[in-house]
Amino acid sequence: MFDWLDVRAQARAKAGLRRRLVPRSADSDVRNLAGNDYLGLARDPRVVAAASAAARRWGAGSTGSRLVTGTLDAHAELERDLADFCGVESALVFSSGYLANLGALSALGGPGTLLVADEYDHASLIDGMRLSRSDHMRVPHRDVAAVAAALRDRSRKRALVVTDSVFSVDGDLAPLAALAAVCREHSAGLLIDDAHGLGVLGPGGRGAPAAAGIAGAPDVVVTATLSKSLGSQGGVVLGPARVIRHLVETARTFIFDTGLAPASVGAAAEALAVLRAEPELADRVRASARALAERLRAAGLDAAEPAGAVVSVRAPSAQQALDWAGRCAAAGVAVGCFRPPSVPDHVSRLRLTARSDLTEQDLDHVVDVLVATAPARADERLLAT
Amino acid sequence: MFDWLDVRAQARAKAGLRRRLVPRSADSDVRNLAGNDYLGLARDPRVVAAASAAARRWGAGSTGSRLVTGTLDAHAELERDLADFCGVESALVFSSGYLANLGALSALGGPGTLLVADEYDHASLIDGMRLSRSDHMRVPHRDVAAVAAALRDRSRKRALVVTDSVFSVDGDLAPLAALAAVCREHSAGLLIDDAHGLGVLGPGGRGAPAAAGIAGAPDVVVTATLSKSLGSQGGVVLGPARVIRHLVETARTFIFDTGLAPASVGAAAEALAVLRAEPELADRVRASARALAERLRAAGLDAAEPAGAVVSVRAPSAQQALDWAGRCAAAGVAVGCFRPPSVPDHVSRLRLTARSDLTEQDLDHVVDVLVATAPARADERLLAT
Ligand SMILES: Cc1ncc(COP(=O)(O)O)c(C=O)c1O
Ligand SMILES: Cc1ncc(COP(=O)(O)O)c(C=O)c1O
Repeated sequence: MFDWLDVRAQARAKAGLRRRLVPRSADSDVRNLAGNDYLGLARDPRVVAAASAAARRWGAGSTGSRLVTGTLDAHAELERDLADFCGVESALVFSSGYLANLGALSALGGPGTLLVADEYDHASLIDGMRLSRSDHMRVPHRDVAAVAAALRDRSRKRALVVTDSVFSVDGDLAPLAALAAVCREHSAGLLIDDAHGLGVLGPGGRGAPAAAGIAGAPDVVVTATLSKSLGSQGGVVLGPARVIRHLVETARTFIFDTGLAPASVGAAAEALAVLRAEPELADRVRASARALAERLRAAGLDAAEPAGAVVSVRAPSAQQALDWAGRCAAAGVAVGCFRPPSVPDHVSRLRLTARSDLTEQDLDHVVDVLVATAPARADERLLAT
Repeated sequence: MFDWLDVRAQARAKAGLRRRLVPRSADSDVRNLAGNDYLGLARDPRVVAAASAAARRWGAGSTGSRLVTGTLDAHAELERDLADFCGVESALVFSSGYLANLGALSALGGPGTLLVADEYDHASLIDGMRLSRSDHMRVPHRDVAAVAAALRDRSRKRALVVTDSVFSVDGDLAPLAALAAVCREHSAGLLIDDAHGLGVLGPGGRGAPAAAGIAGAPDVVVTATLSKSLGSQGGVVLGPARVIRHLVETARTFIFDTGLAPASVGAAAEALAVLRAEPELADRVRASARALAERLRAAGLDAAEPAGAVVSVRAPSAQQALDWAGRCAAAGVAVGCFRPPSVPDHVSRLRLTARSDLTEQDLDHVVDVLVATAPARADERLLAT
């Protein structure tokens, strides 16, 4: 039965697309620019202590679906905090950002709804659209006119536009205010995945919708994850109370899934408290990312302009991206390596993520290593034009 | 845009299908027969201490995709432990059981594969089939002949039979050995969701496939969750090494999701160690469930025969199930209440779950409360025949 898996594996090997799990040890001293712990909170002693305290108080697991025994006081409090911080009526915590996206799209979509998605949207949004059994179409990247045309020409009564805020691979920003205006004009909803915006963009890290002035709008739904800036695990949907009620009652990935573990709930709540107390964390990570991109470009590398924390650097090929990332790791700098199918345009990239706690020295070292290990300059595609 | 949500909410209210989140407090002294913490390990001091220790050692979050920075030594160890315990070549940990099922089915399915599923399969398996874009069909509950016919008559070369082991609503068992034989005969694979079997069935809780003598077979893939018997959060796929390699390289819900949080990894690993050291936990939970079902039936209630820990009791209607569960809660016994769409046959039920740590007194009390609060006997459908 499973012989075909070996054939596929050989094909991936030939194309330079093998993937291996490389466990990391707790005391590695590699400079880590590959993770999404943008504010450096995953290992913050306050956040770690909150994780432990929640496990002691509630146990290691939530023991059931959120609708049965899986809702703790702690979930309800975290939901109030997140809603308040992001300026929305209501919030619902899922066990992951992935399941939050699947749940929101399948509950808000359906055969009577047209979904319009940016072609660079995250895998979890794409899967959510597939699961929803809605008509759906993908429009060119950041193309507001294409969205407007799709909404204008639709035959379905209901429509929902679906976009990442900060796109996960290139770190660029969706035109949120313009999208919201177009949605309003055409009586459509807007769903924004703010996984890479929460904690990074907007006043004090309140997210990309707040930065765009559309937080709390009645036709906007925001999803986010607790696993990046908040250093924990889990996902959340933020929006009007009636949207959240609808998710509680109908979202399959909410109803048929065990509630988020107490330790992860406690950690996310404490990370949010730290961010409230230290709003400058959000400014710092953006400044770090900009500095990193500028220096890489000054050294002749093809680094994209970062809207948030993600700095993407194009590589000539999948194999060269992999080798380059390997040389960086050997030199003590961990960077992400994104190859097909994790890149929307088939161009492989190194993906660096800034953190609030990177020092000038860290940045110098990272830039030196990236430049020294770059593939031979002879390859034109590598150079910024 | 979202006005239609209110219309739907009104329709659900009329049908007695409203759902509300009822947070539980850490020090509630309700007798909890609604959760899935079958071995009572979620609050075991050893498990809780392991959760805290892992958070301190690794941080509150894993900080990235398992393929980037999200694989810790702790994930790799837990995977080895789980594979060894369950008698399979290899294991892969996901951030939830839901995502493990979605990942396994979408990576192993596809347009060239026929999926054959039991009509009572869990929502996450159904969603996985939808996501996989395979041809799929559902066969009557526990019907081996229907599975054989579907495999024999298929036009697709590849086929995968998909079933829960212990079905989550009624607690009955799939005919695993017979299904495996039929799959073997027709060169099909068998995927078993052992969410409610791991820790409960088989020698020392090694799961339903071990009980059926098919653990480690080359054409069998098992999924399970770390959120029930292991008292934590997370999911796992167990099977031949080439299946696991294929998932690492292609399963979208693995690649594009943040790795399971350290505390949950640590807790699950410790729970597994406790279960290894105390194999009688598994025997105890089964004995408890059987005793519970017998006494309920002796009192005239329509309780199904439990294969594992789940005891299901039919109720006359959705509204009466809800009221009955409410009366139980008021009397200090928390039970699950399953109504459409969470029941495959539109019959609402109370769902009780046994635990290894229930005493005789607990059982007496629970039976007394269920009987005293049951809907009026006048309704015939309530009584066992
Ligand atoms: C844009 C985006 N959305 C959703 C997710 C999924 O979130 P989680 O990892 O919490 O499941 C991710 C990354 O993991 C992401 O980058
Ligand atoms: C049969 C079955 N499979 C999968 C799942 C999903 O597991 P998890 O809650 O860990 O996501 C559940 C319940 O939650 C289940 O009952």
